[in-house]
Amino acid sequence: MSQFTNVTVSKKANVYFNGGVTSRTVVFADGTKKTLGLMLPGTYEFTTDTIEIMEITAGDLLVLLPGESEWKPYQGGTQFEVPANATFKMDVKTITDYVCSFVSVS
Amino acid sequence: MSQFTNVTVSKKANVYFNGGVTSRTVVFADGTKKTLGLMLPGTYEFTTDTIEIMEITAGDLLVLLPGESEWKPYQGGTQFEVPANATFKMDVKTITDYVCSFVSVS
Repeated sequence: MSQFTNVTVSKKANVYFNGGVTSRTVVFADGTKKTLGLMLPGTYEFTTDTIEIMEITAGDLLVLLPGESEWKPYQGGTQFEVPANATFKMDVKTITDYVCSFVSVS
Repeated sequence: MSQFTNVTVSKKANVYFNGGVTSRTVVFADGTKKTLGLMLPGTYEFTTDTIEIMEITAGDLLVLLPGESEWKPYQGGTQFEVPANATFKMDVKTITDYVCSFVSVS
């Protein structure tokens, strides 16, 4: 699936780390939300609210997941999951394109 | 209008100038296309295929339109139009969020 159909997309970008990480919010017909994002090379730390599934569309990065001591490599075509209310770090080596899904557990 | 509804959005980003300018392509139900883009500070030159209407959502830049000798300032809430098959330059002063509409004349 190379595109999302029948969605609502915000005109305004989400900008983090002075533009090092930027994304657009996409809302689906069922109310679920994803962000389509891009990260420039650099090191970034984020804290989740919900479970987040990070699908790497293109690029090359190292990820330090919460509770782990080892950075693990991810590339285009791979994904990782971050628990809710957790902090994780990314060391982006080449421009990285991603889709982040937010998973609410009710 | 702060968002676009009932659209198709590409998962893959368009990346120019080593990530200085990035955008996502949005296709509307009537087949028309826009890009939702973000520019980091820097100077960029683009060449159009169709007429392009650049709506600045946020930010601050100078623009040199084709055939003009004077750079003109634009900010969030303003827009400019570029003819088809023309080259224009932008000198982006602060992170600039834009919507670009492509106008095909048949």
